[in-house]
Amino acid sequence: MSPTIPTVQTAAVVPATGAPLEVRRDHPVKQASELAPGECLVKIEYTGVCHTDLHAAQGDWPIPPMTPLIGGHEGVGHIVAIGAHTSSSPVKIGDRVGIKWLADSCLQCEQCRKGLEQCCSGAKLSGYTVDGTFSQYVVSFVNHVSLIPEGLPSADAASILCAGVTTYRAIKYSQTNIGDWIVLPGAGGGLGHLAIQYAVAKGLRVVAVDTGEEKKKLCLSLGAEKWIDFRETKDLVGDIKEATGGGAHSAVVTAASSSGYEQAIDYLRPGGTLMAVGLPATASLNASIFFTVFKAIKILGSYVGNRQDAVEALDIAARGKVKVHFALRPLGDLKDVYDGMSAGKIAGRVVLDCSQ
Amino acid sequence: MSPTIPTVQTAAVVPATGAPLEVRRDHPVKQASELAPGECLVKIEYTGVCHTDLHAAQGDWPIPPMTPLIGGHEGVGHIVAIGAHTSSSPVKIGDRVGIKWLADSCLQCEQCRKGLEQCCSGAKLSGYTVDGTFSQYVVSFVNHVSLIPEGLPSADAASILCAGVTTYRAIKYSQTNIGDWIVLPGAGGGLGHLAIQYAVAKGLRVVAVDTGEEKKKLCLSLGAEKWIDFRETKDLVGDIKEATGGGAHSAVVTAASSSGYEQAIDYLRPGGTLMAVGLPATASLNASIFFTVFKAIKILGSYVGNRQDAVEALDIAARGKVKVHFALRPLGDLKDVYDGMSAGKIAGRVVLDCSQ
Amino acid sequence: MSPTIPTVQTAAVVPATGAPLEVRRDHPVKQASELAPGECLVKIEYTGVCHTDLHAAQGDWPIPPMTPLIGGHEGVGHIVAIGAHTSSSPVKIGDRVGIKWLADSCLQCEQCRKGLEQCCSGAKLSGYTVDGTFSQYVVSFVNHVSLIPEGLPSADAASILCAGVTTYRAIKYSQTNIGDWIVLPGAGGGLGHLAIQYAVAKGLRVVAVDTGEEKKKLCLSLGAEKWIDFRETKDLVGDIKEATGGGAHSAVVTAASSSGYEQAIDYLRPGGTLMAVGLPATASLNASIFFTVFKAIKILGSYVGNRQDAVEALDIAARGKVKVHFALRPLGDLKDVYDGMSAGKIAGRVVLDCSQ
Amino acid sequence: MSPTIPTVQTAAVVPATGAPLEVRRDHPVKQASELAPGECLVKIEYTGVCHTDLHAAQGDWPIPPMTPLIGGHEGVGHIVAIGAHTSSSPVKIGDRVGIKWLADSCLQCEQCRKGLEQCCSGAKLSGYTVDGTFSQYVVSFVNHVSLIPEGLPSADAASILCAGVTTYRAIKYSQTNIGDWIVLPGAGGGLGHLAIQYAVAKGLRVVAVDTGEEKKKLCLSLGAEKWIDFRETKDLVGDIKEATGGGAHSAVVTAASSSGYEQAIDYLRPGGTLMAVGLPATASLNASIFFTVFKAIKILGSYVGNRQDAVEALDIAARGKVKVHFALRPLGDLKDVYDGMSAGKIAGRVVLDCSQ
Repeated sequence: MSPTIPTVQTAAVVPATGAPLEVRRDHPVKQASELAPGECLVKIEYTGVCHTDLHAAQGDWPIPPMTPLIGGHEGVGHIVAIGAHTSSSPVKIGDRVGIKWLADSCLQCEQCRKGLEQCCSGAKLSGYTVDGTFSQYVVSFVNHVSLIPEGLPSADAASILCAGVTTYRAIKYSQTNIGDWIVLPGAGGGLGHLAIQYAVAKGLRVVAVDTGEEKKKLCLSLGAEKWIDFRETKDLVGDIKEATGGGAHSAVVTAASSSGYEQAIDYLRPGGTLMAVGLPATASLNASIFFTVFKAIKILGSYVGNRQDAVEALDIAARGKVKVHFALRPLGDLKDVYDGMSAGKIAGRVVLDCSQ
Repeated sequence: MSPTIPTVQTAAVVPATGAPLEVRRDHPVKQASELAPGECLVKIEYTGVCHTDLHAAQGDWPIPPMTPLIGGHEGVGHIVAIGAHTSSSPVKIGDRVGIKWLADSCLQCEQCRKGLEQCCSGAKLSGYTVDGTFSQYVVSFVNHVSLIPEGLPSADAASILCAGVTTYRAIKYSQTNIGDWIVLPGAGGGLGHLAIQYAVAKGLRVVAVDTGEEKKKLCLSLGAEKWIDFRETKDLVGDIKEATGGGAHSAVVTAASSSGYEQAIDYLRPGGTLMAVGLPATASLNASIFFTVFKAIKILGSYVGNRQDAVEALDIAARGKVKVHFALRPLGDLKDVYDGMSAGKIAGRVVLDCSQ
Repeated sequence: MSPTIPTVQTAAVVPATGAPLEVRRDHPVKQASELAPGECLVKIEYTGVCHTDLHAAQGDWPIPPMTPLIGGHEGVGHIVAIGAHTSSSPVKIGDRVGIKWLADSCLQCEQCRKGLEQCCSGAKLSGYTVDGTFSQYVVSFVNHVSLIPEGLPSADAASILCAGVTTYRAIKYSQTNIGDWIVLPGAGGGLGHLAIQYAVAKGLRVVAVDTGEEKKKLCLSLGAEKWIDFRETKDLVGDIKEATGGGAHSAVVTAASSSGYEQAIDYLRPGGTLMAVGLPATASLNASIFFTVFKAIKILGSYVGNRQDAVEALDIAARGKVKVHFALRPLGDLKDVYDGMSAGKIAGRVVLDCSQ
Repeated sequence: MSPTIPTVQTAAVVPATGAPLEVRRDHPVKQASELAPGECLVKIEYTGVCHTDLHAAQGDWPIPPMTPLIGGHEGVGHIVAIGAHTSSSPVKIGDRVGIKWLADSCLQCEQCRKGLEQCCSGAKLSGYTVDGTFSQYVVSFVNHVSLIPEGLPSADAASILCAGVTTYRAIKYSQTNIGDWIVLPGAGGGLGHLAIQYAVAKGLRVVAVDTGEEKKKLCLSLGAEKWIDFRETKDLVGDIKEATGGGAHSAVVTAASSSGYEQAIDYLRPGGTLMAVGLPATASLNASIFFTVFKAIKILGSYVGNRQDAVEALDIAARGKVKVHFALRPLGDLKDVYDGMSAGKIAGRVVLDCSQ
């Protein structure tokens, strides 16, 4: 017997770009009969909040979001309906699944055929070009929802779906071996603290760069070998070079400003790899061409992850190698959370409980 | 019997950074007995002139050259002496060899062990940190001189040693397959016209970007499939996207200005590879971080080449797949050549005859 | 308006494993209304014949084929119907498409997510586990049919779909650079003569190994640099080593017997790559473990190709870089063709005309 | 002041192929003045014993060793002299260094230029083509001795130099990601127990295959997740497939017999990688060609390691990630050790103390 699906729900809606968020208690729920082939309806338990959601609400990215919009792309819940005539679904009603930034892709274009699904020209982006997970029920797509492995609590899984996948993929493709040094600016933040753990799981040696005693303690407890407080150091580049015996092999830069990229070119050793994962609205790389060439530096744009990256990132977390540090709040608090993020007052990851 | 070695020679000397070049007829020649183990003395037949030589003479790079300095790093000639106690030399007296930018490296440090010899911290750079090939005799190093294959005339081999190796390596590591599109800004220039030929030899499809009828004719005759005149197009990025069915797979950017990099991020298709090979004194990348990440672009610094790259680049040329277009002038003309290069009036590659 | 679809057709049916082939004129055609979502009906113009079809008819492979069976997996024709409720088809009625060995895969399992679709556990194999192209109409799958590029005649495209894709992928992944030596045993055969052309398109130097004047002439005309007649040579390994300056960088071995693999280990240079593409029923590799390890040889199993490989192989052929040499015969001749293949009397590729 | 070098020493000499080993107390020591440029004299503290030494003594490999021969290629000691006229040595008198199987290579041939130094045609093999470490003083080569990191005791470092480097390289190049399954047949043995630790350091999940309670305990204590006793299982392949959720991603096969390779083809999942590292005198791969191709299996010959692999393998051990389990015996016991190895009675690694 299929689950009962209500007709209305609580959802956090951005009515227009830049307009204040509205938490509505009477937002309509799409019914099973309205689903197209390949679509599924997911009842959300928990959803993470990501900086990208703020970009979507503010509309400051070079690619415009839809409006009105329900944001959110780190949702975990259960499938309660699948569209009729769906052929060969990898999931079924009752499965616990995650909804990530890449809600759907065609699986047929050149990028999809090459495994770069996130660059599919027909990609659907959760909470950006289709409604996302800041609601109790959301339409998603059977080809792209991620099965959540047993043993990984839903609230813990939420942030893995974007922050986790993004940092995991960056580390997976960082062209590093056991014992190589990797620098993680912002190591104590939402992405950074996950990056530390994936890096440690790969046998890398981590230089954590961030500021404050609390973050220092967190980073070192997660396995970082070196800590550099960027507020206290007088020579960030010099300190990293010293800590890493002459320069790091890789860095995962999530920064919104150009300086993080300029510095990385300097503190990487020759042949080093800069994984660029941040998506600032306007900043440019500003790295020295001379030294990028002279040191044979590789700058690799790493954009979220594909389905396989998500499977792997979740599996690693389910085996206890990566734990998300997050604050749990009710869905209705989202506006407060946005205000806090805008003011730079949110430390770590926020996960929303959508059950109420 | 060893060749006779004179005591003086003609050499083009930069007495001090920024000072005018002096062609001296009485420059001393190092004698066989003065060579250290691992050194060899090469009698130069021909040497190419590279834009880097102008940087060396002007001293405008972030890394200072030695002075007084004999420039030049595209020299071809014969070995006339090898230092006593040299162990296991891969070359012998009488061999015809090339001297490239990377005159020597330690072969023992991390970078050398990993095959990235050009980033050896003890690297000796011909015509920059050691005397180069703008002379009739030069001291070089048995481990790094390149054997010139039979059938490749010395004057033709000269430019392969830097312009050829640099473009060959960039194309070799461009992560492209048969039939992929590669964009070559400056395709009609000294590096560009070689890049076309190496790209064609790899089965790539070339979009040549440059200006003027003469360069257009050259590029198309060398195998470029598409020609875009950057002075005539109103939308360079749009034209490239159209020519390549939606965006190129790769680009080899030799430009000295930031704009070449910004544009490449735009005209590459998702997952595309930007090979950065130019060494401008001060310009920075200035590429959009957002689109580098969102399109999963790879920016790979490609710095000249290692010994194996040189062997391959020369072999391909010796088999007739790559021909250098150059103007032959006497060594004594070097000052004129520099003046022409500074004024942007030299088209193509210049090779100097050192015999007189 | 949709094309008219007849109710019966000519088809070549294997009634049971090992039983004689029957060409039936009254085989039923599946109608549009009978197609499942994701299925399409293709009206076949031409189909290639492959050695695998003989294995299917004889049932001598370790994996059993279905029976009764219509073989064939190199078919080219037009889509005349698509199953109702098919979501997001990359093709439409009227498109000219190819049907390859891999008729369908789930696009969702680990292997599909990693781009190794041909190893999908739910793979449907044309002419083996689902009916193939030895008929006038065949049901195929929208996700896996290959669009045939304009300008490539259908009869020429047929053999590209298996023989072409298989050799193309092997060469694409052979870890070779411009100017590397590749050995092609059986170079004058159905797969071999395509392998020569793909290898040449990649800038490789080809040693063709086969026997007889006719094949020698063919191989050299297609761009092979060296020819070795395995019947005439007294030392195949020695001859290859001499021809390649000390050993080849790669070999594509399609042989059904162990000896082709043993020899390759010997004539490859250290670090060389053996691309294994043959699918003999029972033979084993039999290569020396000692020398595989001591020479750091890579033996890579390369099994047909995925959708992207097919796109690329077809595109290269459409640009005139690869031409199939084949004999054209009517579909009704298939039994004769099988008899000829069993007797080893078929040289080159056979393509069947399905229009009659 | 240089160390005093005696004129005679204790050394274990194989007088002729197959002849009994002789421990001589009066074997001559090469003096500093007799060293060629590039050579160094090392005073050995400890040396490991490897199965290869037995092959050398018995002369049963396809490549003949020199005789009379001093075997041994896992030696650790201090440099006491360096040949006059040695240019640019990376080591100096007093340095603690390791001597590995690859005693020297030319650093100039194609294989060396490509980083595959172990396949250099001029390679000198310690204890095989040049005298090895079963002595108190041995001549080695400054370019190839490995600096032993501080904090790693000499006796512990010994086995890293061959068993460690070999397994480390195999795992480094096994094309595996965090969380992938790797099967290690012989996991409780000399190579196997190191392979477990390197695999765990890389974040891999290990299936240990061996026999007996003691080895089971050892393997699980080193981090293996699954244990399979090959004497007790009725279906080794089935058990591995079950343990790994459908097949392993990789296997490191050190076995001397063909069966280890046959089985690996069966228990690897499609796309899996078989790292072949054993060097049996005569066995052949015997793997099914059909399934190697059909499953797209990669079989990679992995032969000891190059200088960089040695640096990394030692560094990982020095950081406590890998510990060698060995029995310490005096150099004079070598004959006993050989007898035990021939009889299959030596479990784990033996290290000899050369000080007495």
